[in-house]
Amino acid sequence: MHAAPISLAALLADLDAGRLTVAASLARAQERIDAVDAAVGAFVARAPEASLAAANAASGPLAGVPIGVKDIFETADMPTEHGSRIYRGHQPLADAPLVAMARARGAAVLGKTATTEFASMDPCKTCNPHNPDHTPGGSSSGSAAAVAAGMVAGAFGSQTGGSVIRPASFCGIAGYKPSFRLLPTVGMKTFAWSLDTAGLFAAGVADVALLAERITGRALAAPASADASGLTVGLYRSTHDHDLDPSMREAWEIAARRIEAAGARLVDVAEPEVMAAARDAHGTVQGFEAAQALFHERTQHRGRMGPKILAALDAGAAIEPADYDAARRAARLGRKAATALFASLDALLVPSALGPAPKGLGSTGDPIMNKLWTLTGNPVVNVPGLRTPDGLPLGVSIVTRFGRDREALAIGALIEPLLAAR
Amino acid sequence: MHAAPISLAALLADLDAGRLTVAASLARAQERIDAVDAAVGAFVARAPEASLAAANAASGPLAGVPIGVKDIFETADMPTEHGSRIYRGHQPLADAPLVAMARARGAAVLGKTATTEFASMDPCKTCNPHNPDHTPGGSSSGSAAAVAAGMVAGAFGSQTGGSVIRPASFCGIAGYKPSFRLLPTVGMKTFAWSLDTAGLFAAGVADVALLAERITGRALAAPASADASGLTVGLYRSTHDHDLDPSMREAWEIAARRIEAAGARLVDVAEPEVMAAARDAHGTVQGFEAAQALFHERTQHRGRMGPKILAALDAGAAIEPADYDAARRAARLGRKAATALFASLDALLVPSALGPAPKGLGSTGDPIMNKLWTLTGNPVVNVPGLRTPDGLPLGVSIVTRFGRDREALAIGALIEPLLAAR
Repeated sequence: MHAAPISLAALLADLDAGRLTVAASLARAQERIDAVDAAVGAFVARAPEASLAAANAASGPLAGVPIGVKDIFETADMPTEHGSRIYRGHQPLADAPLVAMARARGAAVLGKTATTEFASMDPCKTCNPHNPDHTPGGSSSGSAAAVAAGMVAGAFGSQTGGSVIRPASFCGIAGYKPSFRLLPTVGMKTFAWSLDTAGLFAAGVADVALLAERITGRALAAPASADASGLTVGLYRSTHDHDLDPSMREAWEIAARRIEAAGARLVDVAEPEVMAAARDAHGTVQGFEAAQALFHERTQHRGRMGPKILAALDAGAAIEPADYDAARRAARLGRKAATALFASLDALLVPSALGPAPKGLGSTGDPIMNKLWTLTGNPVVNVPGLRTPDGLPLGVSIVTRFGRDREALAIGALIEPLLAAR
Repeated sequence: MHAAPISLAALLADLDAGRLTVAASLARAQERIDAVDAAVGAFVARAPEASLAAANAASGPLAGVPIGVKDIFETADMPTEHGSRIYRGHQPLADAPLVAMARARGAAVLGKTATTEFASMDPCKTCNPHNPDHTPGGSSSGSAAAVAAGMVAGAFGSQTGGSVIRPASFCGIAGYKPSFRLLPTVGMKTFAWSLDTAGLFAAGVADVALLAERITGRALAAPASADASGLTVGLYRSTHDHDLDPSMREAWEIAARRIEAAGARLVDVAEPEVMAAARDAHGTVQGFEAAQALFHERTQHRGRMGPKILAALDAGAAIEPADYDAARRAARLGRKAATALFASLDALLVPSALGPAPKGLGSTGDPIMNKLWTLTGNPVVNVPGLRTPDGLPLGVSIVTRFGRDREALAIGALIEPLLAAR
């Protein structure tokens, strides 16, 4: 097992130029899954023959592109189990819109990828392709690992706390958490409706931008640029920075120095109090909503739920409506403050996680560096490229103003080669 | 067939005082359904024996309360067909949270109620209990008719345009569209995620407030008051008022004069331009989102869809992302303007529909008077009591500031007896 992501941009260039057929591209991905997934454990279901035949015959801007779909998105041709024993073998009638949209553009869904239970904290079996003793992160564990191990060129995930950006950072690939509700979350199992955000994984930033552009029809993939002059980038100093691993602190510093060398103006941004308060409110919003969203499961199927999610849901059920309302007000103030920050900044540069992927598969790591931006709904892009001395990936995030997804992807693409340089 | 709604407040008083048993209450409702639903056509599925047995044995603040659930909410014990041939016989695994919450409080779900196709504009078979030649309104047709005909004491509906307030007005019952996302929409078939709002029906305003309070645990049912002094109520003059039927114009005027006589100060409110623009943006938001939400159905099952929804979805699929984004900005400005209005007003008084229920079952009527408040997310309560000379109900709406649901229900309850007086 090793990490060898497929570049979607290169794959599309080969397909467009006729150097590769749709069938050959998909056969190669299937062979890769057959060869390495026993060790990685990224997939929980594989596409049936009929779907593969349809994908081989597909046309459209994503024809020949193999993708994986986190198993909380409903699929008409494969079970959707949400990482839960309750939903074992559960077969939806329709594809979730994001899946249907990707298929309509020609993409081949090669399988469903492993998720923590209900996209929460009880881990699944997936390991990190960079080192199988380490977690790939979660909750979109299988999607991140499948892309990192080169089994698919893109994958769907979701983020309620830090479930796209954190596994992308741990697995050394690009992760894109769009502006809230840019990608439809319909047909995706709800955990917390104010927070749940559909997101994408691909090898690099330009790849994930292309995937998003071809699914949505939005102009999200900007031309490549190496010139950062004219950009003002903030180093966002959060109240949790004291918990950063020294390796991540160094990675953040390297990223900052290199983007400055490319011409950007760097400024230090102290975390506004209302934004720290908004992060603190995340747990209340999430807990209250999750206890309602999974009310039936929590009350009717307790014996078939993992300990972490059950504890979280029971705690959520004890939250009073008035406390939830206060947390929503704090979130609203945090969103306004985030928008105000970008009046004088093009982007923020922040660590994508506290450090590299922790050892062991019992925990998927800490989402604390991601929660705030999930709550505010700002677009976030994980930029891969840096590593620990042991070879574990370290990602940094570009955050931009709400709705400025194209800018987040463009700035992420600009700094990506700067990080990869030795 | 005749309209004879069950007062939930009176029913709960009888149950609490031991004058009525849970089983007797539910048996009476079942008998009423058996007697009149063949003519009304409110139900598309009835509760199975096991569920009735569980409801008979239930305890909690809603034990003995028979309710109906619009057939776009998932139920674990009954099929959920969304009024669509595509979903015929479709059996979900779990109850939607709102259903699970009501059952956990003891409520008896006696059946699933008829909905227009995917809660859109293709009508179902339900007729108006006040006159079977007239529509009950839609899309929550069965829920409104079931309450109006006294088959259940409460019912669940949903509103994306005017699907709670309009049928409540047409059927002469109370309808409550809460602040956006006060009631969870998880497990409810999505049509447009920025607009879809779960709502409630009951005989009168105090009844619907009690139902909401006992489901959510929020203090929504205020003590009754007959004194409107100290209230400032705005008569919201929309740019669509010229389409009002003379009977509704008169009903609105009567309601205004009576609340003024009870002590309220009345002010005329000209519709702000940004709010008219927000209403105009409703169709773009709804169309774009619906085309995505029902992507699979629209592309894979066209032959099993009605003409109105198919035309709406195809039109929605042609909307450019930039136009959708502009519509969302217009909606945001409309929300801000709505909040600003309530700086000097306690409530707005507006017509709940253009007129009484139109004749015929081919159309469920026009949601134009409701769309703006769905888009802005303000709480709205339909207050019944007035009628045309022919005996068809005419409702007026109380609208309050976002989050002020208790006030909307309290003011609605205050004016309800004023309207019922001859």
